[in-house]
Amino acid sequence: MDNFTNYAYSDFWNHLSEEDRQTFILNSHDQSLKKGEFVRSEKVKCQGLIYIKNGALRTYLLSEDGREVTLYRLHEGDVCILSASCIIDTISFDVFIDAEEDTVIQVTDADFFGKLSNENIYVRCFGYRVATERFSDVMWSMQQLLFMRIDQRLAIYLWDESVRTGSLKIKATQEEVAVAIGSAREVVSRMLKIFSDEGLVNVFRGGIEIKDRARLHSLTL
Amino acid sequence: MDNFTNYAYSDFWNHLSEEDRQTFILNSHDQSLKKGEFVRSEKVKCQGLIYIKNGALRTYLLSEDGREVTLYRLHEGDVCILSASCIIDTISFDVFIDAEEDTVIQVTDADFFGKLSNENIYVRCFGYRVATERFSDVMWSMQQLLFMRIDQRLAIYLWDESVRTGSLKIKATQEEVAVAIGSAREVVSRMLKIFSDEGLVNVFRGGIEIKDRARLHSLTL
Repeated sequence: MDNFTNYAYSDFWNHLSEEDRQTFILNSHDQSLKKGEFVRSEKVKCQGLIYIKNGALRTYLLSEDGREVTLYRLHEGDVCILSASCIIDTISFDVFIDAEEDTVIQVTDADFFGKLSNENIYVRCFGYRVATERFSDVMWSMQQLLFMRIDQRLAIYLWDESVRTGSLKIKATQEEVAVAIGSAREVVSRMLKIFSDEGLVNVFRGGIEIKDRARLHSLTL
Repeated sequence: MDNFTNYAYSDFWNHLSEEDRQTFILNSHDQSLKKGEFVRSEKVKCQGLIYIKNGALRTYLLSEDGREVTLYRLHEGDVCILSASCIIDTISFDVFIDAEEDTVIQVTDADFFGKLSNENIYVRCFGYRVATERFSDVMWSMQQLLFMRIDQRLAIYLWDESVRTGSLKIKATQEEVAVAIGSAREVVSRMLKIFSDEGLVNVFRGGIEIKDRARLHSLTL
């Protein structure tokens, strides 16, 4: 428990009574998620406050016709608050959250967190603060989606993935890339063809290899 | 001061010392805005916490090519927090806010509010809470923007192109239409078939001809 209480939950941890701390620990448990497993969906609504021990969670919107729009990703050490949105009365929208890879999370029960949040202003403030951080993340995505050229969006995606994985070979289908950048597969396919013709990337079965880092990076700016 | 301290700022008002309340009042002033006047822009960055006495403020994003996307509107009795975003460290995005009509606001100085927010957890929590409410507003707009019915998006595109070119014949491939409305070619193709069956349009090689302007227009609303 020490790792995260010292860091992720430091806003309120020292403002809890010893009893509340013990109850917090009793109401928290580790959970392993397989890639693709939902943390929040139409069926799983309000699991609780989540601390990511390792792996990654993706938060996205889903349209009626099945289109996904990625809002943001959370990684090791991040806190997921929308999985506990039922206890925050100002959050009135639905999102999907799933594990982007095999992931280990620590879940603190929603009802318990809600009760603690009502009783303790520091806990309450923490919830709103994290939500406000996600607000920034979403605004960033929204600006990306609305205003950025498709070549730039694709370049940023490839660059970010390359940095994240520490590899020039990005394993992702064109369908997955399209979902990630909020576009259509055909659009991604066409743009990759252009990138490929220009020697920026090499498209292989199941992925994309970056051939010219410098020029790809210049497209992201 | 009574009106709003009793309501809009009730989260923290009773948690302020008498001295802080007096200072709060001294650091707040009324301001009249003409329609179109900015509360936040590239020039006016962080005016302060705003309470709307009457009128309306609109918050929007502005792209480099001048396109505006409205995020939400605030009315009498609402609190605008993004006009004080500099004091909330988790807000890292830029928006424009202007008066949608002649409006009277009460502005509480950003520096003062920031200082109070640092000192008082109730004030801090209030700021985050209002920001989280706006998060909900933005998510709603985003869902509207992203997932507006495909028939409506297509109708709007056809209508706009027709108006722009002054012709009922729109020269565009289905691929181009798909890119323009942010959808897939198959989806556009299917929807055009429906429009065609209903006598709204006539699809020809390399373009679309509008047959029933009135009904097409009604779809855009």
